[in-house]
Amino acid sequence: MSAEVVPLPVKEPSLTPILSLTATAMNSVNAIILDRMQSEIPLIPALAGHLIAGGGKRMRPMLTLAGADLVGYQGARHHKLAAAVEFIHTATLLHDDVVDGSETRRGKETANIVFGNPATVLVGDFLFARAFELMVEDGSLKVLKILSSASAIIAQGEVDQLTAQRRIETSEERYLHIIGAKTAALFAAASRISAVVAECSEAEERALDDYGRNLGIAFQLVDDAIDYDSSAAEMGKDRGDDFREGKMTLPVILAYARGDDQERRFWQEAIAGFRTEDEDLAHAVDLIRRHDCVTATRERARHFAQRACDALSIFPDGSARRAMVEAAQFAVSRGY
Amino acid sequence: MSAEVVPLPVKEPSLTPILSLTATAMNSVNAIILDRMQSEIPLIPALAGHLIAGGGKRMRPMLTLAGADLVGYQGARHHKLAAAVEFIHTATLLHDDVVDGSETRRGKETANIVFGNPATVLVGDFLFARAFELMVEDGSLKVLKILSSASAIIAQGEVDQLTAQRRIETSEERYLHIIGAKTAALFAAASRISAVVAECSEAEERALDDYGRNLGIAFQLVDDAIDYDSSAAEMGKDRGDDFREGKMTLPVILAYARGDDQERRFWQEAIAGFRTEDEDLAHAVDLIRRHDCVTATRERARHFAQRACDALSIFPDGSARRAMVEAAQFAVSRGY
Repeated sequence: MSAEVVPLPVKEPSLTPILSLTATAMNSVNAIILDRMQSEIPLIPALAGHLIAGGGKRMRPMLTLAGADLVGYQGARHHKLAAAVEFIHTATLLHDDVVDGSETRRGKETANIVFGNPATVLVGDFLFARAFELMVEDGSLKVLKILSSASAIIAQGEVDQLTAQRRIETSEERYLHIIGAKTAALFAAASRISAVVAECSEAEERALDDYGRNLGIAFQLVDDAIDYDSSAAEMGKDRGDDFREGKMTLPVILAYARGDDQERRFWQEAIAGFRTEDEDLAHAVDLIRRHDCVTATRERARHFAQRACDALSIFPDGSARRAMVEAAQFAVSRGY
Repeated sequence: MSAEVVPLPVKEPSLTPILSLTATAMNSVNAIILDRMQSEIPLIPALAGHLIAGGGKRMRPMLTLAGADLVGYQGARHHKLAAAVEFIHTATLLHDDVVDGSETRRGKETANIVFGNPATVLVGDFLFARAFELMVEDGSLKVLKILSSASAIIAQGEVDQLTAQRRIETSEERYLHIIGAKTAALFAAASRISAVVAECSEAEERALDDYGRNLGIAFQLVDDAIDYDSSAAEMGKDRGDDFREGKMTLPVILAYARGDDQERRFWQEAIAGFRTEDEDLAHAVDLIRRHDCVTATRERARHFAQRACDALSIFPDGSARRAMVEAAQFAVSRGY
């Protein structure tokens, strides 16, 4: 156990260190992804490739690769498993876009718009099955257990989010529970499996799980903040989508909690789906700014990012740990 | 190896023998299914239960149970695996109904109609993940390999069917390839895994795989025949659904092949979606009868059912084998 203090945030955190750390391994992962999304049915690689080649950040497989570096793993088993993680993520994105009726993602038309809902649902199923094939090839029942359990939790989180949609009474606790399942469970699993292939101690496994889980929560919180941040430079998704879909994210939960009676009536109507015009969105952004709810959401995110960094304190200092700490700092600095 | 001749079809084949053979074990499987479809999110058991309690025949888990009896397996591992098989099947049914926009199944409103497409897609994902959790608990990598591979093949078959939809030029070979993937792969896997848990020889595994695969093809052929059989007493799905959706099933493929130029123009227009009235369906049924295409489809089914039965000849005669043979005979006698 190292007793060092984890470094304070640097001035302008960047993903460059973790990207450099994982660049060579990520080439192998990308090759596996491209190879395993192939099928004799041409529509499958066409549809999967539309999203996979669409410029995702590969955050989740990156966690597997960085974690493996952190614990000094020398083999290559984690490449296939990182590809499996990305396939699970891609499958959930395809299904999410169908579920939400989303029209754009990462600045491009979504697969459901280009290829239709039916093919998008089925190719998601295909990628999910492929993920399990990759895991079976690796042969670790422990990894299979971690990722099948995470997959069930993700699906439950998605259903839970659907249940909370258009329900103004959704609490911060409920919201944290939802994003812990729908987003953070895969971050945690992706990170944890690096310790499993390296046959680390249970404490090291747990530390990597904690890092991934807290990072995932921070990541989602910042995504949700950016959707209402009038000054945001970076947009991860179409501005105002959450608002029009009546999704209960933390900025809205806090603005509702902090609002007066008139404001609360506005939120009730908006989340119920009766205020979906641009001027309504502008009013929502204004209320959220008035009560500092983007700032408060970002503060919550910083809290979880800090917990992520501190979870790594049991590992020795070095380029891998510094890169992972900076990635967490970067996650909460996005959109400034 | 037994050299006996597999018995010829009995007069009125019935599912009763295989139902009796597997009744006790099926109670355990049903208990596992009910237990494992639970979740802290109430919508999940509500939606899953709507389909699962909706009177399915549990054909696929029944194959696992009957196969285990056939090979003299004494343990209980196959109960959990049979439940996993049913979960995979249920997940694909939920997604199929979303993909096809189906409104009824087994005489009830579909889950997508009652609960909406978003929840139906996500609960399908949940059940699929749960299936893998069950397999991981069992711990056989060989079973995991068989069922993850089958799952990928099923998804590919579904996408392939979508690609062939509204394409009158689809051949019988292509159709057999599609149903071999979308239907027969899970029948084969369900049957095969009974030999795996019983640690049978590779030849016995293959024989059970062959039985399931050929039975699955026969089963699907009869389903597709019934959809156009004017004399059918039993309807497995809403009459004429395949016709209106422009699905290329064998009765249509044969009627198109055997039709004159005028008839072929009708089929081209119908499959392209320009003839969807009740009188168009009546005309289609009439053309199919005129060219004996339901009979021909049933003959093809008999061929595969016979192959299924003969695949069992390496196992000794007994109540299990006789029940499985009769189940295959029953499969092709449905709807008369």
